[in-house]
Amino acid sequence: MDIQEKNLESSGHQKINWVSKHMKLLNSIQTMSYSLNGLKIGMSIHLEAKTAYLAITLKKLGADVFVTGCNPLSTQDDVAEALKDYGIIVHAKRTEDEREYFSFLHKILDYKPDLILDDGADLTVLAHTERKEVLDNLKGVSEETTTGVRRLKNLQAQGILKVPVIAVNNAKMKFMFDNRYGTGQSTWDSIMRNTNLLVAGKRVLVAGYGWCGRGIALRAHGLGARVMVSEVDPIKAVEALMDGFDVGKIDELAPQADIIITATGVCDVLSEETIRKLKNGVILANAGHFNVEIPMEKLEKLATRKYEIRKNVTCYEVNGKDIFVIGQGRLVNLAAADGHPVEIMDISFALQALSLLYLSQHYKDLKNIVYDYPEELDRQVAMLKLRSLGIEIDNLTDEQRKYLESF
Amino acid sequence: MDIQEKNLESSGHQKINWVSKHMKLLNSIQTMSYSLNGLKIGMSIHLEAKTAYLAITLKKLGADVFVTGCNPLSTQDDVAEALKDYGIIVHAKRTEDEREYFSFLHKILDYKPDLILDDGADLTVLAHTERKEVLDNLKGVSEETTTGVRRLKNLQAQGILKVPVIAVNNAKMKFMFDNRYGTGQSTWDSIMRNTNLLVAGKRVLVAGYGWCGRGIALRAHGLGARVMVSEVDPIKAVEALMDGFDVGKIDELAPQADIIITATGVCDVLSEETIRKLKNGVILANAGHFNVEIPMEKLEKLATRKYEIRKNVTCYEVNGKDIFVIGQGRLVNLAAADGHPVEIMDISFALQALSLLYLSQHYKDLKNIVYDYPEELDRQVAMLKLRSLGIEIDNLTDEQRKYLESF
Amino acid sequence: MDIQEKNLESSGHQKINWVSKHMKLLNSIQTMSYSLNGLKIGMSIHLEAKTAYLAITLKKLGADVFVTGCNPLSTQDDVAEALKDYGIIVHAKRTEDEREYFSFLHKILDYKPDLILDDGADLTVLAHTERKEVLDNLKGVSEETTTGVRRLKNLQAQGILKVPVIAVNNAKMKFMFDNRYGTGQSTWDSIMRNTNLLVAGKRVLVAGYGWCGRGIALRAHGLGARVMVSEVDPIKAVEALMDGFDVGKIDELAPQADIIITATGVCDVLSEETIRKLKNGVILANAGHFNVEIPMEKLEKLATRKYEIRKNVTCYEVNGKDIFVIGQGRLVNLAAADGHPVEIMDISFALQALSLLYLSQHYKDLKNIVYDYPEELDRQVAMLKLRSLGIEIDNLTDEQRKYLESF
Amino acid sequence: MDIQEKNLESSGHQKINWVSKHMKLLNSIQTMSYSLNGLKIGMSIHLEAKTAYLAITLKKLGADVFVTGCNPLSTQDDVAEALKDYGIIVHAKRTEDEREYFSFLHKILDYKPDLILDDGADLTVLAHTERKEVLDNLKGVSEETTTGVRRLKNLQAQGILKVPVIAVNNAKMKFMFDNRYGTGQSTWDSIMRNTNLLVAGKRVLVAGYGWCGRGIALRAHGLGARVMVSEVDPIKAVEALMDGFDVGKIDELAPQADIIITATGVCDVLSEETIRKLKNGVILANAGHFNVEIPMEKLEKLATRKYEIRKNVTCYEVNGKDIFVIGQGRLVNLAAADGHPVEIMDISFALQALSLLYLSQHYKDLKNIVYDYPEELDRQVAMLKLRSLGIEIDNLTDEQRKYLESF
Repeated sequence: MDIQEKNLESSGHQKINWVSKHMKLLNSIQTMSYSLNGLKIGMSIHLEAKTAYLAITLKKLGADVFVTGCNPLSTQDDVAEALKDYGIIVHAKRTEDEREYFSFLHKILDYKPDLILDDGADLTVLAHTERKEVLDNLKGVSEETTTGVRRLKNLQAQGILKVPVIAVNNAKMKFMFDNRYGTGQSTWDSIMRNTNLLVAGKRVLVAGYGWCGRGIALRAHGLGARVMVSEVDPIKAVEALMDGFDVGKIDELAPQADIIITATGVCDVLSEETIRKLKNGVILANAGHFNVEIPMEKLEKLATRKYEIRKNVTCYEVNGKDIFVIGQGRLVNLAAADGHPVEIMDISFALQALSLLYLSQHYKDLKNIVYDYPEELDRQVAMLKLRSLGIEIDNLTDEQRKYLESF
Repeated sequence: MDIQEKNLESSGHQKINWVSKHMKLLNSIQTMSYSLNGLKIGMSIHLEAKTAYLAITLKKLGADVFVTGCNPLSTQDDVAEALKDYGIIVHAKRTEDEREYFSFLHKILDYKPDLILDDGADLTVLAHTERKEVLDNLKGVSEETTTGVRRLKNLQAQGILKVPVIAVNNAKMKFMFDNRYGTGQSTWDSIMRNTNLLVAGKRVLVAGYGWCGRGIALRAHGLGARVMVSEVDPIKAVEALMDGFDVGKIDELAPQADIIITATGVCDVLSEETIRKLKNGVILANAGHFNVEIPMEKLEKLATRKYEIRKNVTCYEVNGKDIFVIGQGRLVNLAAADGHPVEIMDISFALQALSLLYLSQHYKDLKNIVYDYPEELDRQVAMLKLRSLGIEIDNLTDEQRKYLESF
Repeated sequence: MDIQEKNLESSGHQKINWVSKHMKLLNSIQTMSYSLNGLKIGMSIHLEAKTAYLAITLKKLGADVFVTGCNPLSTQDDVAEALKDYGIIVHAKRTEDEREYFSFLHKILDYKPDLILDDGADLTVLAHTERKEVLDNLKGVSEETTTGVRRLKNLQAQGILKVPVIAVNNAKMKFMFDNRYGTGQSTWDSIMRNTNLLVAGKRVLVAGYGWCGRGIALRAHGLGARVMVSEVDPIKAVEALMDGFDVGKIDELAPQADIIITATGVCDVLSEETIRKLKNGVILANAGHFNVEIPMEKLEKLATRKYEIRKNVTCYEVNGKDIFVIGQGRLVNLAAADGHPVEIMDISFALQALSLLYLSQHYKDLKNIVYDYPEELDRQVAMLKLRSLGIEIDNLTDEQRKYLESF
Repeated sequence: MDIQEKNLESSGHQKINWVSKHMKLLNSIQTMSYSLNGLKIGMSIHLEAKTAYLAITLKKLGADVFVTGCNPLSTQDDVAEALKDYGIIVHAKRTEDEREYFSFLHKILDYKPDLILDDGADLTVLAHTERKEVLDNLKGVSEETTTGVRRLKNLQAQGILKVPVIAVNNAKMKFMFDNRYGTGQSTWDSIMRNTNLLVAGKRVLVAGYGWCGRGIALRAHGLGARVMVSEVDPIKAVEALMDGFDVGKIDELAPQADIIITATGVCDVLSEETIRKLKNGVILANAGHFNVEIPMEKLEKLATRKYEIRKNVTCYEVNGKDIFVIGQGRLVNLAAADGHPVEIMDISFALQALSLLYLSQHYKDLKNIVYDYPEELDRQVAMLKLRSLGIEIDNLTDEQRKYLESF
């Protein structure tokens, strides 16, 4: 059944139709002679139109696809519903109930997938802890995020990892674009639409200057903000400084900030003492994978009053001051907006699709470790992207190639 | 009755409560010893939370306030409803019916206002044409926009204008911020939230390089786009070029664009021939006051199919290509998003409030012409803004003042 | 005699040859049917290759041209020498002797010029004070700078001005480009070449946020600096803030700065107390017309040691700290580099040339006041610039023109 | 003998004195308890004040230091002379004679150095080819550049490399700053000072989007240029596009360019056919290590006339058009300006100094291969840099560290 034939009155199908017009890399992969015939793929992803279209693509390549969310609040129910019309099994729903969320993960594992496509590694970790029986049939995992890769490397370090993992996050075509420009744009899209506040002239503190933090800082700057950065890595700290941003300890910078955005990959970015010193009216948003960066329990504890002041914005009254948190401290671009821009996810999902094809062909030769993304596939996706835009680039001449080999 | 006491379950009151926390200039004006006692003020404005809060401010200064919209699609019904709880008379509703829209304007004039606060000049033009009887009591007009000022100057040129007008749009604190940074941010906020598409790397054509166009181009650039500009004024064209943008004729630039944004103040920015040559998938958005810039009738005529493909996005199929129009060619930031950022409107409305106070005091001494915004009030609003941010600036020393007077 | 035929071994002729290839507006004016036949033009300008080429252009249009400097240190002797080969009378030399500088101004006035082309207004002020006898023959003045225009308006205010003045500085094609992008680039060119220090990451304080200050701040930002701005005008202060810069009092900002650049148009920008608090190693540079902005006498007084540490850089030891001043506090881009970029001066000098032609035709009808630059000439220069780049722009359609006249 | 005691009348000593005030990392390394006692270090570097100060630093750490250039045109003779006053052996002189240049390299090898500090790898390649007898005593090499590392990896690949090499270029503190922000600023510093032309509005083509190319493009953009990029690596090509630049084949982009800058690391970047199609007045500059990127012989062949039109600028007349080449196609920032900013080289040279100390301690345990820069030293230099600026950063809390180790 084709997108064109769906009931476009349904909001879920509408959304999928929209992204299908802009995910040109997935479209071109669908027309290639690749095959995932007969393989069962378990997907744990932010379930919205773009991931839905990845699932559809994998289905078109011949796989049986089983989908759930990877974050309780990021599932869009209308899309989940529409996806079923494509013959895809979906167990997912927007929920604040962590137990319900995990029950869905279990259901996916019940299908004993051959391959897992993971985002944050919840599904893979579950398979390696509570659900080890599924490891027998599991041939490989493709993991999308910085956080997920870190967790799986820790599994590996502890000798627990039982399948080869492709760290899609480590592809250049991933972190340079998805983490940087995807997060950069979508974080600000979400903050702007949820607050209707001006960015120009504001003091913005970005906690963490990895690829996500860089993108957030760059776009803050592009919107006219005055940007401050906190980091634990001295090299990244020097980079932030030379990029034109103020750098310092978070406890000193946070009280000067109008907007604070976390992108650290660690927990508890603000101490209780610092929370008390925040400006009246400060906006807090998290752009990291898990909702542990902004210490929500501390906020709850310190607040004398808490209420939803605007859709997706909670006001905590602390010390007579208003602290506004967007999207409950969850990934602000997904919990309170539409996630990364379509074309960014198109690139990331092209990487994912190719990594699953790669795993299906090579899993027997791979060790049970976390692999960097294969360079050749990375280049292949870049070429697909350029081609989709009608851009041609140069090749080295023979003379230049010879020059490069000389000494 | 105070905002604190309102029913914050109502979405209209919620929205007004949110902006009241961020409109610090209006808040400080409310506490000043100014008075509009006993004056009837007719307002025609984009009726949403921020303009509602301006109406509330004028009411607090003693005026009787009568409010309607200034654009059929930009009224938010929940806010209109909530505003009535403040003792303000409201005739407004989101509508696509131009006749209904004009009937509301007539109702406001029925109250025979002493002062008009206008946005686009529909209300004032009506008073000078079909409803001349209201001119007897009318003491002055404060007009907000480039387009409205142009229209009222044309009224003046034709000898029809019968009251003094303050061109709020000509205040530096207006056009440098509202037109430039307000339009710049809110246009992109709207495009991003309504399309979920990436801006980085896109070719964006900005038609018109006035203050609005400059802001749109600047933010496009800040979001990573490659920007092209079309202009009819050679000086602005050179400026756009030196700002780092490509400049040329719209008929040559438009077919290269992924996104086209109009901010010209004129009608029919794209010819039929150019529409035929647009890229498949191009996005069209209008940031000018009236919905005449994108030639919607031409699109309707040329399209073989037309349907809503995403909320606020209409797909026109022309020549087998998709042309996507956001917000039906109306002001994209208001028709399909929340309008300018709150703090920007706070500045613009502080200018408006002070201009009404000024008119109420000086109307007898003024001629029936369009006045530039009084410089002293302009500076006063700037000082209020700095003060609200806790920023102090220098004064000239006596020595420096003397130096400036020397030759 | 033509540039091609000059002795290109001479460095002065080399420099003039170089700029002649890049001053395309002057080149096109030379080929027009304009005439200054028989008029004596006294020029007081920063005498280097670009101004020399303006003198040559005026000569080609038929005038007798008499040239001197407008700043003791900005004359380039090799260019002054070469200029004489074109039949132009030159009295100028790089000097630190103010008396010698003024003696040259007197010599120019001895020729009783019909028109004065001034830069900073020294020549015109002299004509109106010590040398009133030359006013009889003087028909008009074209003045280039913000500072000069201010001085001549003060002359006018005091009833002393005896000729019409065209404020070239007030042309849009002047201040938007020369003051902003000319000063912006050339100030940083000079600082970089004279210090070989990194700009990225540095804290730069720009004193004054007029057109010059804006350009300096913009380019500082473009080079990776963290920018702070001090202003006395609250509107400009708000603009600087929304442009993403820190704003405050100079006494608080200066001690945080690594580089301080003055562009205020006033004297004594730093107090003695603030000088004492400057960072060790701070760089001071002036981008304003006169060398009064950085208080050099205070520095001299406070310094325990003073020496030239690098070409064009003087080290003042104050309180055991090094304070480095570039170009002795004179216009840093002229006293210690090559002045504005060639193409910028080409625009400004096209404005100058046209204003002299305008004065020669209209002086009888003009009052003895300072006139804004004629709008039509401003547009004409913009069109010349676009044409020189091969760029075409749109014209309003009849329909659009009609729309603009409607209300 | 101390810098303070030198004859500061000498321009060489002046220059060294200036940089000594700004190379705070080298200053702090000089005061540490490190030792290079008794080791002979052969240095082949762009001999100007900053590299001189590195040599002085190594001398202070106890080494015997022997210095020559690494590029015929980049030696500053006054600095070379002054350096001798520090007890350092110098064989170097600015020359266009390649043979003389190589004779100096030979002289350095005559001293049988224990360690080589190389920039471009000429000295190390010579030691491994014509001068193998010096390998006996050679314990290790520290190489600075992308080009040099490539050459030494080719030596290694062919089994010829006989000593361990530390690729300083691969340190993050190197390529993120020296290649990017060092090259970015100094390339434009050189182009601006040597041409006095405007950058704003110009079409600039950057050939190569490695770290150097990125820096050049970023600063071009910061100076107002419209930037185009050519690349052979599809991933970098996509990055350039998303950074907001036009991307394409060099043969199509070059004819549109006003300025072309090569930073490719390969030879013959422009074909003969493309040279013929360049714009009249185009500026060519090379920012890559060797003078092979701009095909100078092709230019010579095609030119009907060639002359020095401005200091450091050669005009080639091809097809009746002017093609201007800065610095004869050699590294434009060194051959025609003062090289990288001082603080950038301070970082790079701190890495160099620490790598030599590392080699002196560990050479026995190292293999004869090219090593990436030791991560711990990289972080150490970053910490030194932050400390020199008085900036403190956060450390992970125990809780965060634990979190990072979890899965």
